[in-house]
Amino acid sequence: MTDKEYMQLALALAARGKGFTSPNPCVGAVVVKNGEVVGQGWHRAYGADHAEVMAIDDAKDAARGADLFVTLEPCNHFGKTPPCTHKILAAGIRRVTAACPDPNPAASGGLAFLSQNNVAVSCGLLQDQAEILIEDFLWYVRHHTPFVTLKCAATLDGRIATFAGESKWITCEAARAFGHEIRGQVDAILVGSGTLHADNPSLTCRIPGKQTRDPVRIILDTRLTISEHAKVIRQESVAPTIVVTGPDVPADKKARLLKQNVQILEIGLKNNRLDLQELMVTLGEMSITSLLIEGGGTVAANALAEGIVNKLIYFLAPKLLGGSDGKAVFEGKGVEKLADAVTLARMTVTRVDTDILVQGYIK
Amino acid sequence: MTDKEYMQLALALAARGKGFTSPNPCVGAVVVKNGEVVGQGWHRAYGADHAEVMAIDDAKDAARGADLFVTLEPCNHFGKTPPCTHKILAAGIRRVTAACPDPNPAASGGLAFLSQNNVAVSCGLLQDQAEILIEDFLWYVRHHTPFVTLKCAATLDGRIATFAGESKWITCEAARAFGHEIRGQVDAILVGSGTLHADNPSLTCRIPGKQTRDPVRIILDTRLTISEHAKVIRQESVAPTIVVTGPDVPADKKARLLKQNVQILEIGLKNNRLDLQELMVTLGEMSITSLLIEGGGTVAANALAEGIVNKLIYFLAPKLLGGSDGKAVFEGKGVEKLADAVTLARMTVTRVDTDILVQGYIK
Repeated sequence: MTDKEYMQLALALAARGKGFTSPNPCVGAVVVKNGEVVGQGWHRAYGADHAEVMAIDDAKDAARGADLFVTLEPCNHFGKTPPCTHKILAAGIRRVTAACPDPNPAASGGLAFLSQNNVAVSCGLLQDQAEILIEDFLWYVRHHTPFVTLKCAATLDGRIATFAGESKWITCEAARAFGHEIRGQVDAILVGSGTLHADNPSLTCRIPGKQTRDPVRIILDTRLTISEHAKVIRQESVAPTIVVTGPDVPADKKARLLKQNVQILEIGLKNNRLDLQELMVTLGEMSITSLLIEGGGTVAANALAEGIVNKLIYFLAPKLLGGSDGKAVFEGKGVEKLADAVTLARMTVTRVDTDILVQGYIK
Repeated sequence: MTDKEYMQLALALAARGKGFTSPNPCVGAVVVKNGEVVGQGWHRAYGADHAEVMAIDDAKDAARGADLFVTLEPCNHFGKTPPCTHKILAAGIRRVTAACPDPNPAASGGLAFLSQNNVAVSCGLLQDQAEILIEDFLWYVRHHTPFVTLKCAATLDGRIATFAGESKWITCEAARAFGHEIRGQVDAILVGSGTLHADNPSLTCRIPGKQTRDPVRIILDTRLTISEHAKVIRQESVAPTIVVTGPDVPADKKARLLKQNVQILEIGLKNNRLDLQELMVTLGEMSITSLLIEGGGTVAANALAEGIVNKLIYFLAPKLLGGSDGKAVFEGKGVEKLADAVTLARMTVTRVDTDILVQGYIK
């Protein structure tokens, strides 16, 4: 195996932790000696061992004189766990290859420290792939607001429901399963009250045969119109439900909801809508590093217009409703000039069973 | 080279004639002797030599005892040219492999005739590919109406212009060039009067550095509102412009247009719109075997609803207008139930530079 292949293995290990490590990034590590993989590890959950520690422990004595491949620069500070750099030195690792540098000023400097202690170090192998894997973490560390993914699912002619409101199902089963995968990878999921009233969704992550973690559920509900019987309130889930309201909502309803363990977050208004930029700052302060917006059309359009969206996940079903009266994927006022249209960078197009999946980053 | 490779070569030759042979199909042929290609031919234009004749003439004496690969069963009747079967026998071809059988009762029976005359024959090699290449011809022979391709070009959120009407350009240059390629492959191109008034298009086929053929231009114009200065009337083009109107249009304007060499076709109304099914029958009688519908949204929606569309060519630009007020790809009333949505069969998804090209057949 080549160095690149060892790092690919480390990346695959890292991906196992995706969705379970927040606000830490997911990280994978491989210990290699005489061309053989002698230890593997990944960060499984916030507070658990770091990937390097798990891989070195897995390698046992074989770690002495071995090489370590790790997807993120080893940390150099005392956090929930002691610095990985110390563990690496104590184990006698002779060479460390990292995919990307640690962007966190508090934790960085690991490679420099190791180099000063006679460990051969290098950084940058498969850095692009490693950065995509932790793009939410990298964004959050730099901006202190969640990395926002907007998920849409529409017909080829841009409709999310017929004029009569029928929306189940636009997309195929595999696409909907993929949607649950994404839910399992984010800290929080957000919908507007319109979607809540129309669909009464659970907003939980359900993948048959797989251990999952429910994201925090966030409902945008300017006037606190949420039903006290809504599934997001009544269901069993360890993740909290946060209802975001504007000012001056009925105190009695607020009190009743608080009693049902619903968290209520009051946010200012901007053009008569909840100020999403303010909300992102608040969510960042709550250590929510990644957010998935699932709709509906008004929330999606507002998120796009407010510039809070980082990434678009767009499912297109090979269907046409054939008119202009179906429910549009974005509601409200669009741009006047094509030059002001939101464009996608680094777009990828793949097939998910019968549907098309377009992914890209908002420029 | 294998038999399959010879047939692939014949298919590539056939494709050279695409757009120039109507109402004949495009056909390619290869003569092979001792494992060597000794003759190549393709049907270049209606009335010109058939592919087999050209390939045999190209092979000269080498045709004797050679094998012939041809994308369509050789014809067995006297049409604009004598039967190819006679030519094949006279040339001493010993084996004929065809991709697909001739669906035209008048011309078919070629392989059976050859077999009776001691030529080894087979049919079906790369038949799928050959049938796609002449799908318009195959449809026309069976149904006597044009094979209809609907071309749309929209943003990911299904818009063909901003609310202010800006539509130039939604798609990238390569996608628009591809659009001209398609124009060069059809007998006729159709737009509604709305598109005519908004864009004043030429509806000609323009591909730099390539010999092209303008399709017949068809304008749906129920009330004969076309400007007498419209480009489709005033420009130089060997292809005629046909304006399709409803009954009771102003006689004086009609007379003036006729003087400008515009053809006027009166069609009945159905739900206050031109009856597209009736129009297809009429166009079929005019030997128009293939039709490209380019818009706008009302015509596209009506064509879809009337069930006249065979194939969809749908360009998606990686842009979002972000609202519901942009011009929709389909205007008017869409379906009420998802079960009634138009779905695509045999969908393919490719990239054309920065855009996505979705193609499929209406189920």
